[in-house]
Amino acid sequence: MTTPLTNPRAERVRGVHQLAQRSAREKSGRMLVEGPQAVREAVRFAGERVRDLYVSTDALTRWSAIVEEALAADRYVHPCDPWVLERMSGDAQGILAVVDRRDATLAEIVDDDAGPPRLVVVCEALADPGNAGTIIRAADAAGADGVVLTAGSVDVTSPKVIRSSAGSVFHLPVVRGAALAETVEALRGVGLTILAADGDGPVDLETTDRLAAPTAWIMGNEAHGISPDVRELADAVVAVPLRGHAESLNVAMAATIVLYASSRAHA
Amino acid sequence: MTTPLTNPRAERVRGVHQLAQRSAREKSGRMLVEGPQAVREAVRFAGERVRDLYVSTDALTRWSAIVEEALAADRYVHPCDPWVLERMSGDAQGILAVVDRRDATLAEIVDDDAGPPRLVVVCEALADPGNAGTIIRAADAAGADGVVLTAGSVDVTSPKVIRSSAGSVFHLPVVRGAALAETVEALRGVGLTILAADGDGPVDLETTDRLAAPTAWIMGNEAHGISPDVRELADAVVAVPLRGHAESLNVAMAATIVLYASSRAHA
Repeated sequence: MTTPLTNPRAERVRGVHQLAQRSAREKSGRMLVEGPQAVREAVRFAGERVRDLYVSTDALTRWSAIVEEALAADRYVHPCDPWVLERMSGDAQGILAVVDRRDATLAEIVDDDAGPPRLVVVCEALADPGNAGTIIRAADAAGADGVVLTAGSVDVTSPKVIRSSAGSVFHLPVVRGAALAETVEALRGVGLTILAADGDGPVDLETTDRLAAPTAWIMGNEAHGISPDVRELADAVVAVPLRGHAESLNVAMAATIVLYASSRAHA
Repeated sequence: MTTPLTNPRAERVRGVHQLAQRSAREKSGRMLVEGPQAVREAVRFAGERVRDLYVSTDALTRWSAIVEEALAADRYVHPCDPWVLERMSGDAQGILAVVDRRDATLAEIVDDDAGPPRLVVVCEALADPGNAGTIIRAADAAGADGVVLTAGSVDVTSPKVIRSSAGSVFHLPVVRGAALAETVEALRGVGLTILAADGDGPVDLETTDRLAAPTAWIMGNEAHGISPDVRELADAVVAVPLRGHAESLNVAMAATIVLYASSRAHA
């Protein structure tokens, strides 16, 4: 480790701070990973992509296990004065990392050496970073093979997506900017049933016998739901039953429920 | 309807704005309901408690159905210049309401004339307003009889809780400031099995035969999980299985899954 960084106006500090902006991420090919949970998963699952790890001097003891793991993997660890880290990010809880971006491809999900995928999530024009992160985390927890976001969706390299995924973005392939029709075709081509989730769907999640098959779930946009194209492309449109007075679930809750229903049916 | 409010510095405008603060809500006994979804549910399910409804003049057409429903129920509807509404709240999407608070009691859940409860959620020291709102929405969607938050939890009359509940706070009793041991005793007294949700729990949600019984689920704090007291009080500690590399689910996702598992088992 080096001597602590003390100048909040240093070029390096500004460079990290700017990774909150999409343009800076596109230009540098790097992204900002905030907080102990996401940083730990980056070090553990994508260690070779971790360029620099920054830790507040007042958090070195608290996050020593992560720091040791990073040092053992020959990563650069920079202690920083607390106000320097605060200048880099207000959501770091004392630790953050700059990580090389890596764009996963649909081929990684479809042509996995371990065999064809059994559970995939496709998000259509998903807008909210918190929802994207939560859906990636739910996909991970349900043992899914990958997540695909169509063009027009939120940038999954944004710090808020990474943070709300609790580091799950480092656990499974997350494809961004995908074309919907091609994605569906490729997934169907390896034997997946295409199910779209929508509150108005005619098929009931709890009584359908379709869940046993390998499945790709399509989740719609927060405001508009699934598109007419998806209704056309899907093998079935499936609804989570609503039992109280709630008129809908948000997309992250719905994704969590359908993914768990599938993983249970596959178990 | 009256002539539009035009002065963003008026006492009335300031009074609405201040309802974002807990102290102002405690003092006035009122709360701030933002956005079309939550306002519509307030008008529909708690109409007699809606004191005033404020609509931006540029959103009157868009939300005319809600305005008509409020006028039909003899509620005060105030058109406002857009900047006046913006001064009241930055998250209103052109419509908000000031609503009398009403504290639900545990007795409402336990002694419901419709029969003993079959599904209740108890949140222990829940801290995040978004999680609280999402859990209330999930409870509603799963047909639960009520939600109880223990003392030390986030204030469920905060605008962010109401908004993220999508108005579900108006659909079922939400008890705040409850004592944990008394709550568990009362729920057990009407025949509910007490299940605590925790990632470390020895009982697997998907294989347990306990879900068929009427159930109260206890969800823990975001950072600390369920307390030793809850482990002591519960009939079982139940984990949602994790199949990928995810180390945990967030509390709102876990609540959504366990509530749906119960509602399905009860169906």
